[in-house]
Amino acid sequence: MRYFEDFEIGRVKRVGSVRVSREDIIDFARRFDPQPFHVDEEAARASVFGGLTASSCHTFALSALILHQSPDEIALVANLGAEVKFPNPLRPDDEIALTNECIAKRVSKSRPEIGIVTTKTILSNASEESVMNMTSSFMVQQRPPTSG
Amino acid sequence: MRYFEDFEIGRVKRVGSVRVSREDIIDFARRFDPQPFHVDEEAARASVFGGLTASSCHTFALSALILHQSPDEIALVANLGAEVKFPNPLRPDDEIALTNECIAKRVSKSRPEIGIVTTKTILSNASEESVMNMTSSFMVQQRPPTSG
Repeated sequence: MRYFEDFEIGRVKRVGSVRVSREDIIDFARRFDPQPFHVDEEAARASVFGGLTASSCHTFALSALILHQSPDEIALVANLGAEVKFPNPLRPDDEIALTNECIAKRVSKSRPEIGIVTTKTILSNASEESVMNMTSSFMVQQRPPTSG
Repeated sequence: MRYFEDFEIGRVKRVGSVRVSREDIIDFARRFDPQPFHVDEEAARASVFGGLTASSCHTFALSALILHQSPDEIALVANLGAEVKFPNPLRPDDEIALTNECIAKRVSKSRPEIGIVTTKTILSNASEESVMNMTSSFMVQQRPPTSG
């Protein structure tokens, strides 16, 4: 687990990656965001994207999945807020890697056992194009004291 | 369909609503964001939320679903960018309503058949608490000329 003490301002951490298939993109979009360029190969080719792209909701969900699958998952108490942007589309068979950088941290005034951390998260494809940029703040546990 | 001409700066439009069940919240979170307070009723009660809450990824996806289900779906060409915030959690059996307000619009310089629109979208629960605020810009088709 990644506790408050493990966040160091300015350190960029590569958290993990995931590959997204054409089927994953279409399945997700059919359920939540069935725009032609997310679900229909032919319509997508005729669109400004020139091919199938993932729903930005799907891209956002995949960032949560990568964070969860990391061996040192954040000891999260609660998310406080996030600003998310999607500069480039995510396409079928893209392998996307997530890095995050701690840009601020402090101990909670009202709950000193809790820390508040702000990170910048970037999700990029194999061509190093960003498919999602997020600045988020969250409450995180302090490392529990070791017994003995 | 809602074309470029149909967006009027300053007009707030109630687009639609959706109700989210406990099962929906747990299913989505198991797949993408299995934090204890999204998937485990008992752990959620012990968390700062005092009960189960939806993943913010799920909240975001539901906003896309409401927009799609609207009888006058936006004649979208492409999303250009969005800033999303989640001021309050979404809880089981919440009915959430989506409103949006056009805050800017212009014709594309390079493609005069396309318009560029910026909207503020608010997703609120029955207590009028916002569970998501989004400012987004997108390319939208102009109304096709009627023949005859």
